[in-house]
Amino acid sequence: MEEEVEKMRKEKRIVVAVDESEESMYALSWCLTNLVSDANKTKSTLILLYVKPPPPLYNSLDAAGYLFANDAVGAMEKYGWDLVNSVMARAEAVYKDFSSIMSVEKKVGTGDAKDVICGAVEKLGADILVMGSHEYGFFKRALLGSVSDHCAKHVKCPVVVVKRPRD
Amino acid sequence: MEEEVEKMRKEKRIVVAVDESEESMYALSWCLTNLVSDANKTKSTLILLYVKPPPPLYNSLDAAGYLFANDAVGAMEKYGWDLVNSVMARAEAVYKDFSSIMSVEKKVGTGDAKDVICGAVEKLGADILVMGSHEYGFFKRALLGSVSDHCAKHVKCPVVVVKRPRD
Repeated sequence: MEEEVEKMRKEKRIVVAVDESEESMYALSWCLTNLVSDANKTKSTLILLYVKPPPPLYNSLDAAGYLFANDAVGAMEKYGWDLVNSVMARAEAVYKDFSSIMSVEKKVGTGDAKDVICGAVEKLGADILVMGSHEYGFFKRALLGSVSDHCAKHVKCPVVVVKRPRD
Repeated sequence: MEEEVEKMRKEKRIVVAVDESEESMYALSWCLTNLVSDANKTKSTLILLYVKPPPPLYNSLDAAGYLFANDAVGAMEKYGWDLVNSVMARAEAVYKDFSSIMSVEKKVGTGDAKDVICGAVEKLGADILVMGSHEYGFFKRALLGSVSDHCAKHVKCPVVVVKRPRD
């Protein structure tokens, strides 16, 4: 136990999954206030992880012959990256006051959010995963499953699920 | 967002669900290292929550006429409280180095762990709930459900699910 505590003190790699939602920005600010602390003996690295949905199957749709001309594909690609940049810019505004006391990395993955996040946490050697929680109703949750549920179950490191308080 | 961050800094009531498991003691030590920090501007209150299982239905079993004599009931009650005390004593050993920088409260509930924990978090005005995670196999999880899953879904405050790394 002692050694484990010692190891935890040394360095902390915190992965925060960010997306377009208010919930994820709240989770990020919770993380900064509660897990990144200026006077801790721990050096923190904040890793922002954004997951782009997988591209649609252009080829099969292309067979229809008119919808996915190269221009449209290019436009969708560009739209995807604009979204990434806007989310990262919002995140920057949230963490800017903490930049001097931690390092920041930004990662973008593509695919099913559940799988990408679980894979990234392992690959990046994360010590903590922080996620916002969308409060879907019963049916949407039953249909979609919940990304945070899945990750809390499958990821090996501690997982923080942050709900945004209702104003 | 700014106000929310401000509010989070002021005081932090952290509920840690403890039981007989190594996992819950690891979760407690993770919590102390990562959430209770001496130099934070935040004053922390650590609330240890132990849930005793509900008593068996003595009356219906008593009808059998021999098993649950009053002595046996008393012995089981005593065994239950011995368990509570031993868990709290183990917890004390884990948090003793942090006692000077936080206040500690101990709570014991009785009933189904899921419901008791969710109810207590609300009633105690918790800002964070910390729980260990038992890595059951698929069948046990499917049968029993997971207390941490349930709480992460139903509790309003941020929930930390801590897995104990395999040595």
